[in-house]
Amino acid sequence: MTTSATPTATGHDAAPDRRHVYDFTEGNAQMKSLLGGKGAGLAEMTRIGVPVPDGFTVTTQACVAAMQAGGTWPDNLWAQIEAHLDDLERRTGRTLGGSERPLLVSVRSGSVFSMPGMMDTILNLGISDDAAAGLAAETGNARFAWDSYRRFLQMYGEVVEGVPAHAFEDELAALKGRRGVTQDTDLTVEDLQELVATFRRVARANGADIPTDPREQLRRSVNAVFASWDNPRARVYRGLNAIPDDLGTAVNVQQMVFGNRGESSATGVAFTRNPSTGAKELYGEFLVNAQGEDVVAGIRTPRPLAELETVLPEAYRQFLDTMTLLESHYGDMQDIEFTIEQSKLYLLQTRNGKRTAAAALKVARDMVDEGVIDRETALRRIEPEQLDQLLHPGLDPKHTATPVTRGLNASPGAAVGRLVFDADTAAERGKAGDAVVLVRWETTPDDIHGVVAAQGVLTAHGGMTSHAAVVARGMGKPCVAGAGELQIDVAAKTVTIGGTVLTEDDTVTLDGSTGNVYVGPIALVPPQITDDFREVLGWADDVRRLGVRANADTGPDAAKARELGAEGIGLCRTEHMFMAADRLPVVQRMILASDADARGAALADLLPMQQSDFDEIFEAMTGLPVTIRLIDPPLHEFLPDLVEQSLLVQRLEIAGAGAPPSDELVAARDLLAHVKRLHEMNPMLGTRGVRLSLLYPEICVMQTRAIIRAAIAVRARGLDPRVEIMVPLVGFAEELRRMREVIVATADEELAAAGVALDYTVGTMIELPRAALTADKVAEHADFFSFGTNDLTQTAVGISRDDAEGSFLASYLEAGIVPANPFASIDADGVAELVRIGVTKGRETKPGLKTGVCGEHGGDPASIAIFDKIGLDYVSCSPYRVPLARLAAARTTLDG
Amino acid sequence: MTTSATPTATGHDAAPDRRHVYDFTEGNAQMKSLLGGKGAGLAEMTRIGVPVPDGFTVTTQACVAAMQAGGTWPDNLWAQIEAHLDDLERRTGRTLGGSERPLLVSVRSGSVFSMPGMMDTILNLGISDDAAAGLAAETGNARFAWDSYRRFLQMYGEVVEGVPAHAFEDELAALKGRRGVTQDTDLTVEDLQELVATFRRVARANGADIPTDPREQLRRSVNAVFASWDNPRARVYRGLNAIPDDLGTAVNVQQMVFGNRGESSATGVAFTRNPSTGAKELYGEFLVNAQGEDVVAGIRTPRPLAELETVLPEAYRQFLDTMTLLESHYGDMQDIEFTIEQSKLYLLQTRNGKRTAAAALKVARDMVDEGVIDRETALRRIEPEQLDQLLHPGLDPKHTATPVTRGLNASPGAAVGRLVFDADTAAERGKAGDAVVLVRWETTPDDIHGVVAAQGVLTAHGGMTSHAAVVARGMGKPCVAGAGELQIDVAAKTVTIGGTVLTEDDTVTLDGSTGNVYVGPIALVPPQITDDFREVLGWADDVRRLGVRANADTGPDAAKARELGAEGIGLCRTEHMFMAADRLPVVQRMILASDADARGAALADLLPMQQSDFDEIFEAMTGLPVTIRLIDPPLHEFLPDLVEQSLLVQRLEIAGAGAPPSDELVAARDLLAHVKRLHEMNPMLGTRGVRLSLLYPEICVMQTRAIIRAAIAVRARGLDPRVEIMVPLVGFAEELRRMREVIVATADEELAAAGVALDYTVGTMIELPRAALTADKVAEHADFFSFGTNDLTQTAVGISRDDAEGSFLASYLEAGIVPANPFASIDADGVAELVRIGVTKGRETKPGLKTGVCGEHGGDPASIAIFDKIGLDYVSCSPYRVPLARLAAARTTLDG
Repeated sequence: MTTSATPTATGHDAAPDRRHVYDFTEGNAQMKSLLGGKGAGLAEMTRIGVPVPDGFTVTTQACVAAMQAGGTWPDNLWAQIEAHLDDLERRTGRTLGGSERPLLVSVRSGSVFSMPGMMDTILNLGISDDAAAGLAAETGNARFAWDSYRRFLQMYGEVVEGVPAHAFEDELAALKGRRGVTQDTDLTVEDLQELVATFRRVARANGADIPTDPREQLRRSVNAVFASWDNPRARVYRGLNAIPDDLGTAVNVQQMVFGNRGESSATGVAFTRNPSTGAKELYGEFLVNAQGEDVVAGIRTPRPLAELETVLPEAYRQFLDTMTLLESHYGDMQDIEFTIEQSKLYLLQTRNGKRTAAAALKVARDMVDEGVIDRETALRRIEPEQLDQLLHPGLDPKHTATPVTRGLNASPGAAVGRLVFDADTAAERGKAGDAVVLVRWETTPDDIHGVVAAQGVLTAHGGMTSHAAVVARGMGKPCVAGAGELQIDVAAKTVTIGGTVLTEDDTVTLDGSTGNVYVGPIALVPPQITDDFREVLGWADDVRRLGVRANADTGPDAAKARELGAEGIGLCRTEHMFMAADRLPVVQRMILASDADARGAALADLLPMQQSDFDEIFEAMTGLPVTIRLIDPPLHEFLPDLVEQSLLVQRLEIAGAGAPPSDELVAARDLLAHVKRLHEMNPMLGTRGVRLSLLYPEICVMQTRAIIRAAIAVRARGLDPRVEIMVPLVGFAEELRRMREVIVATADEELAAAGVALDYTVGTMIELPRAALTADKVAEHADFFSFGTNDLTQTAVGISRDDAEGSFLASYLEAGIVPANPFASIDADGVAELVRIGVTKGRETKPGLKTGVCGEHGGDPASIAIFDKIGLDYVSCSPYRVPLARLAAARTTLDG
Repeated sequence: MTTSATPTATGHDAAPDRRHVYDFTEGNAQMKSLLGGKGAGLAEMTRIGVPVPDGFTVTTQACVAAMQAGGTWPDNLWAQIEAHLDDLERRTGRTLGGSERPLLVSVRSGSVFSMPGMMDTILNLGISDDAAAGLAAETGNARFAWDSYRRFLQMYGEVVEGVPAHAFEDELAALKGRRGVTQDTDLTVEDLQELVATFRRVARANGADIPTDPREQLRRSVNAVFASWDNPRARVYRGLNAIPDDLGTAVNVQQMVFGNRGESSATGVAFTRNPSTGAKELYGEFLVNAQGEDVVAGIRTPRPLAELETVLPEAYRQFLDTMTLLESHYGDMQDIEFTIEQSKLYLLQTRNGKRTAAAALKVARDMVDEGVIDRETALRRIEPEQLDQLLHPGLDPKHTATPVTRGLNASPGAAVGRLVFDADTAAERGKAGDAVVLVRWETTPDDIHGVVAAQGVLTAHGGMTSHAAVVARGMGKPCVAGAGELQIDVAAKTVTIGGTVLTEDDTVTLDGSTGNVYVGPIALVPPQITDDFREVLGWADDVRRLGVRANADTGPDAAKARELGAEGIGLCRTEHMFMAADRLPVVQRMILASDADARGAALADLLPMQQSDFDEIFEAMTGLPVTIRLIDPPLHEFLPDLVEQSLLVQRLEIAGAGAPPSDELVAARDLLAHVKRLHEMNPMLGTRGVRLSLLYPEICVMQTRAIIRAAIAVRARGLDPRVEIMVPLVGFAEELRRMREVIVATADEELAAAGVALDYTVGTMIELPRAALTADKVAEHADFFSFGTNDLTQTAVGISRDDAEGSFLASYLEAGIVPANPFASIDADGVAELVRIGVTKGRETKPGLKTGVCGEHGGDPASIAIFDKIGLDYVSCSPYRVPLARLAAARTTLDG
């Protein structure tokens, strides 16, 4: 063992001189990948003079080396830890496990990317029978000493030695029961000493041999933190957040400071600004005489930070100074954990605070106004995905329902769903498409998959910084936390509120913006767009290269898209108009027509209906381009299902057996014959898109007439319709050449008849690999390309979305065979490569060819970054994704 | 009008000096694209001294110019024709339409590529009342003169003026009836004069104004030949034979010589070798006192050529000399048309003769032996597609059936099918998958689509060179021609043979190799492979770079493939083995298993079955590689159809209404639930291939065990199994990585258990665009790539083969939107580009990566040429396509 402050090599590994341990005074914020976020943060705080308990960090590289060696540590690691521990003992004048001035330390994980609550922590390490006595003597507070001791045994036993948590909890509850008390703090020193003995017995009964040497405890604890990198919930979290599995975690060993060292001590968490609204105000909570875990676990409901001024005025002053120092140093809103030990403030952690989208926008805008950051930095601070939650629906303001109870407004937005009582059920029913609300006493990291699948979360315990609240805000899910009136019976699957008993059959409505909870569904309305929103999105518009359009099929959708900043319609699906209840019979008449005349008559009836749709859209989008896609789906989509119709015919046949066929049977058989004729084995690859229009050009003629007539009518009202006609599913240039002839002939005939001059363009979707590969030829007949990346993904990857998402693709995602759902985020190696080929070849033929994307990827930030690099002119997405796309486009420009 | 031998410009077209007309003495064989095949042939024959009637050729360019101008001729065309006609009149000392020494000419089409019988011909042009008298006087044969006149009116009226053919035929038949004669030759001069008058009346009655000026008749005839380029049957023929539509036809104007000028005159057709067997022997037929149309039309049955020696010995001697001259000049078997006029031989046409595959092989081999051509030239002479007919089945030699009648053995091979009496029905039922035999009095070019769709053709009239025989040989269809006993009633759809009346419900068997016709089906057997076949294919093997394997799923198929020259199995589909009647229940048990144990039990039952299959295949292929593909199709393919099962459940429910559900209903409902669970919207893009194996690795484990155990057993018998295990439908490299792990672990476990060392490789199919685009990554885990171009076509072009070939793809082919069926011949721009990308990227990772193709394109010559250029190592096709692929591979090597 060496006592030098600079660790030296004692082992024989491949890099014997590699340094695995750094004192806090030796690091800084830039060393995040080596020291982890927490370790680098502690070092940086130490460096700038923020009060931080002393300690050192074991590097992520040490963890990775141990993982790669199947758990075996690098040869010199333990020696380096002991050397730094020796130094720490020297600097603090304390000894780990010592009977006088004992040193107690925390052992915490700290990965490069924040994974709150996902890995293990051990507190109060270093306590023992001797040290407890020493601590009691030193502080004159035997209760504190023995409480720390029992807490240590409980946490160490569970985390490091694998003793089931309930084994300790049961004993604690039993003792409180015997003593007739409800609070831990009501237990006496003797009670706690008894508990220490009991806990040691419990550990042994569960096969755990807790070592008596605190240094051995430290070694095992560091190892347990290493191992916790790979626990299941950490893996799930990394999967959800796209964090690589091979980064490893650092381990921070830090002198314990005690928020539970009496009434002049406290512990708490805080944000430098309000993470829910972004307002520059005190935001946080604390518990007197408590350790940090008491706050985060949400078991005791903490007090608002403002009350600290009254309770501990000296610490409060230090706190305000430190908040100012931190924000001016980091230039961003900070999320801090602090402890006050005998009126002295210590910061345990600071990091950039998670915030709601509204807060992100306000903080960004305010900091620009304050001159702290520039606009580009502000844009980089806002995650595009987060904006989505701003656009979540809220309660219809006209509702008159009375809340059944109220909790904390922990995450904004409103949710309606049936109650579920555990995360597995929530995940299962959520995946099946049910709207569910997860109700829990409190959530834990094990509940994440349930939160993902639920519309919203309701908890009985916990505050604004409880697990449920943090997780829900991160996901943009509405959350009402700490609704104390709830009586939950998980086994019986009931929740009782006052006298009302609710079950899985009941629907509730949460308002995460007010904390109100309602029984039954309430109508929701879209939220208002704030000034912050408009301002910051305006900065994004100034920066971005990529245009943003919306996919919209109706006038109101188009108007909403324009309000949200869409610069045109990238995809108007005309067949959605066919599905309306009053139109479907006409469409069916058209499909079932026995000859061209009958089909012509049905189409003549459809024409004014389509024309009025287009009229509304052109009006809403005046001055901006509107891309209208001609009919795309196979005709059988407009007819009854084959199985249903077959069963109907059989029923009628059996019922009428012996008699001549009824008119109903004759009609049903006739319809069945049509359904069979149009039935396809693989409709996705069948007679649809341009194939349909080439077989039945009269449909395309009708649609073109409706488009052009609508444009003429809108123009006549003094507006400026910008018409783009799009042909879907082109695989061969010749298909487009022929369709273009029909469209141009029809359009020009209409314009000539009306005596109107009106520009329009004709383009195509690129949604088949062949179209991308032969884009040079297709471009000869196209004024624009719009990449239909949904179908392009289906064909390029050979996955039917209808079938796969519920079956093998789900397994693939779970098993990590594919890194992401290719229908959500574009497959960069395959599908995006086809887009690149298509753009490149298209522009070889027509250098100025306008190119866009109108698949759902158009609203996905990762995909937008790829499309920007490929050089597309625009993306098009659903109206509510438009702001997100604007921001993502700006960020990808900033990222170069 | 000019009388110069060199035509000069008289018009005002864009190329006023362009020469549109060439005398036969001015051309040669190299001028085929300008003069057409026939025109260049006549010029070449003239040049080398073969006796050819004098004349000139109007160029294909003139035809194209007229087509492009909507039928208007180039300004100077008619003047050039008249100038050449003047010269012809001068050289022959005859005058068109003259009353003394009248000049009669034929006007014949002649395109660049042979289109026999597809376009129009006018004979005897120049005859008139005056010329008929002059001809009668000159020849002393009034009957011949007036017969020529009535023939001209009939042909000109029909072809140029559009008078219906039957209008003339009816009058001819009526006259013969009135005269009580059966042969045209029994009519007297007076009868023929009456017929001339009648035909003129018939023409007028049909609105045709036949001009009296023979030069005007010539102008209209040339124009009619031009127009016939675009008649429907010519377009169909070009479509079938991939002849471009914009080549146009030349027109040959040639002095008539008269095979019908009495008993010292004759006309006939001949081949320089036997086109059916390839033997170097006299082959052909002639008719005394007849014109060529009489031979080709098959109305009179002609005499074998050998008899010419007796009938016209002088002409026969000229004929033999000319045959020798032709073959030595052209270096290939010639197909000639000749006429003997008063004992003098004239050749009207020579061209490389169409021949059966057997003949092609024999001629090629003999000519190499004779030193006429080298082996490479010989290989170029044989069309790979032709070999297919050699591999057509023949009658089982053990059959004991007695033929009901016999005709000419016009095209080899045997056919079994139900009778159809017209081409439209044949086409319709053939497309629907019925095996039909087309029976006709004689076939005409209008019947082609029926011949295409039929298994074979049976005619009552016509000889070995009749239309039916030529067309059937070209297509490799069995044909029995001139079966004179047949009494066909087209309207009643019956054929009477002796006393037997057959209808559309009857099946017949044709043996095109013997001419026998049987009532009822006879079992067929594959044909024997001849020495010529082996010899010539051996030359192909010496030349080709590309390997050729076969797709085979059973031992016998593998043995057949090896016999046909396959160098391994490129695709063994393991799931075909699952479909056998005795195995399907076990497979269903496996699919319906409620847990892994039950599934394991079913798989254990399947293992020995699969193992014995593999054992047979490895044995048959000892020393050659065998690529075994793991299970590919979605599991629901092994279960009942969804609609059928739904109907069954409903029937049982209705039948048992009121009673508790029967066991049958419970079982049916249970099965329906499984069918529904496995039902997919787009099974082509669903849970199949590697996706299935990743969901149920136990299937892959069973298959791997069966493969390796079979290989161990075959090795133990002293043989040399070469195992290649192939994973289908890989889209992501990670899929293959994981599957490879399972396969290797299983295989190595089996090998270790048996204590056997055995090399095996693991590769993948590349059948998704993404796999091709990311082939560099996929190759990291693959020892070989096999391009599954069927599925690659389905995904790249976005066409479901099951759906499209019967619907829009058929329309696309008909409308010319796609140049060829992409499932028959690989799409060069799209799918082949993906193959190229896949090979290139795969070899970036592994320079020695073995690559092949196992889609149906592996047996298509055009596709093989593309695969060879891309640099694949091998193609794999059905066993009977293997010889074809070997030859095609050699030819593509020769083509560089």
